[in-house]
Amino acid sequence: MPSDIRLTRRVQFYETDAAGIVHFSWFFRYMEEAEHALWRAAGLSIHPGGSEIGWPRVATSFEFKRPLKFEDEFEVQLHVAKITRRTIRYTCRLSQGDATIATGDLTIACVRKVPGEPMRSTDIPPEIAARFQVAAGTQ
Amino acid sequence: MPSDIRLTRRVQFYETDAAGIVHFSWFFRYMEEAEHALWRAAGLSIHPGGSEIGWPRVATSFEFKRPLKFEDEFEVQLHVAKITRRTIRYTCRLSQGDATIATGDLTIACVRKVPGEPMRSTDIPPEIAARFQVAAGTQ
Amino acid sequence: MPSDIRLTRRVQFYETDAAGIVHFSWFFRYMEEAEHALWRAAGLSIHPGGSEIGWPRVATSFEFKRPLKFEDEFEVQLHVAKITRRTIRYTCRLSQGDATIATGDLTIACVRKVPGEPMRSTDIPPEIAARFQVAAGTQ
Amino acid sequence: MPSDIRLTRRVQFYETDAAGIVHFSWFFRYMEEAEHALWRAAGLSIHPGGSEIGWPRVATSFEFKRPLKFEDEFEVQLHVAKITRRTIRYTCRLSQGDATIATGDLTIACVRKVPGEPMRSTDIPPEIAARFQVAAGTQ
Repeated sequence: MPSDIRLTRRVQFYETDAAGIVHFSWFFRYMEEAEHALWRAAGLSIHPGGSEIGWPRVATSFEFKRPLKFEDEFEVQLHVAKITRRTIRYTCRLSQGDATIATGDLTIACVRKVPGEPMRSTDIPPEIAARFQVAAGTQ
Repeated sequence: MPSDIRLTRRVQFYETDAAGIVHFSWFFRYMEEAEHALWRAAGLSIHPGGSEIGWPRVATSFEFKRPLKFEDEFEVQLHVAKITRRTIRYTCRLSQGDATIATGDLTIACVRKVPGEPMRSTDIPPEIAARFQVAAGTQ
Repeated sequence: MPSDIRLTRRVQFYETDAAGIVHFSWFFRYMEEAEHALWRAAGLSIHPGGSEIGWPRVATSFEFKRPLKFEDEFEVQLHVAKITRRTIRYTCRLSQGDATIATGDLTIACVRKVPGEPMRSTDIPPEIAARFQVAAGTQ
Repeated sequence: MPSDIRLTRRVQFYETDAAGIVHFSWFFRYMEEAEHALWRAAGLSIHPGGSEIGWPRVATSFEFKRPLKFEDEFEVQLHVAKITRRTIRYTCRLSQGDATIATGDLTIACVRKVPGEPMRSTDIPPEIAARFQVAAGTQ
């Protein structure tokens, strides 16, 4: 029942932009990499082949404190901050040593997908909800 | 002195993911495309060659209401919501007809870049601030 | 029965890298944008919802002559160079005025996709093959 | 004096497209990740801060044999195939176990960059050329 995960990551060249720093859109991808690693740590895939259950993102944000440059190593920490009947909310921190690079959050919703129909909100299956727990000190 | 801009955009295949919809990181790029079009409409480039002034992103968020699919056409509206001495804040809405796809915001800060030194916050040059105005009804 | 297409495109900021120019991976995306525009000009979508037919890429290349920078405008020309029973080959040229930026090619194969099985090579449906013709002077 | 490198990589969700497989543009990024890891293994950075020397890509290609899907693990092998006075050519193979996923190549050129001038081809600095050797069995 993991409640958080910590990854080490290195900035790739294609993640930088002409300002010489990582393009801000990449922070959301770093956060999602950590989310999917968290699901694997829980023994799950967030997108298993053939599943009718999906997890669209409903809200996300980031605050950027310091830039990242090519080949910088940094850490991504992701915490499960809240689980409701139909949503999961994560908080995220990117850092280098003690220095905070950025903080963000991400809320995802559980949906049922039927081919040819719009996605429909649904309860999180108990066998999935049982695999995660809210991290201490978050909300 | 533009205060807002409206673009029409079509979803490209490489913007979609295995869930069959646009990956959420792209919404931030759509918003930035509109920002740069707004600057061009104001007679400016946000990243002119050789400038010591830069505009790192300091905060951004999106709420996602409906998915976008391959080849969907949609509109991106960006408004100047607030201008302070050293920051600009935009609000953004993606839509198809009357349907809201997503809403977001983006705050950027003005910095001075000296090679070999960290970026340093600085006042927005008056000749740039004079080119924009806050959109009516935003804040 | 289109045999080619020509697009005008502007470099977006997120397409540049820390060398100050468009990252080379983007040229393949520019080429694909032109491909999908060509299919739309032919009255088709290359990825219509629910289709069992797919078009994986089997080979592609680019030669790069000159760099592109942020906000540069350029043209993408794509030609149908060859149609076989199961493949289509395009050639592509990116340019600014008379100057060639890059030249590339792309070969795609027609496959049938059955859920849970590997993709299987198949003949191009006649109603699709009939919508394209090989461009004069290519091969 | 490394002549090759081998990485293990996992497919990220944002690398997939609506066909359910990795978008072909990503293979060029995987190859470049291996290139930069090779340079680090040689004690170098391909893009050190403040350098006048740059390495634009002049030609690249890939042939795709099998698709990659979300969360697949695969290997990237990159070899130094040829070093000339002003260029380096690599060959690359992506694989899963014995199965070849794709093969590619990449040629880069050494240039001198002076602010405000076009990049100019130049000889590879000896202290860089001395750090690499051509892999046995390539050309």
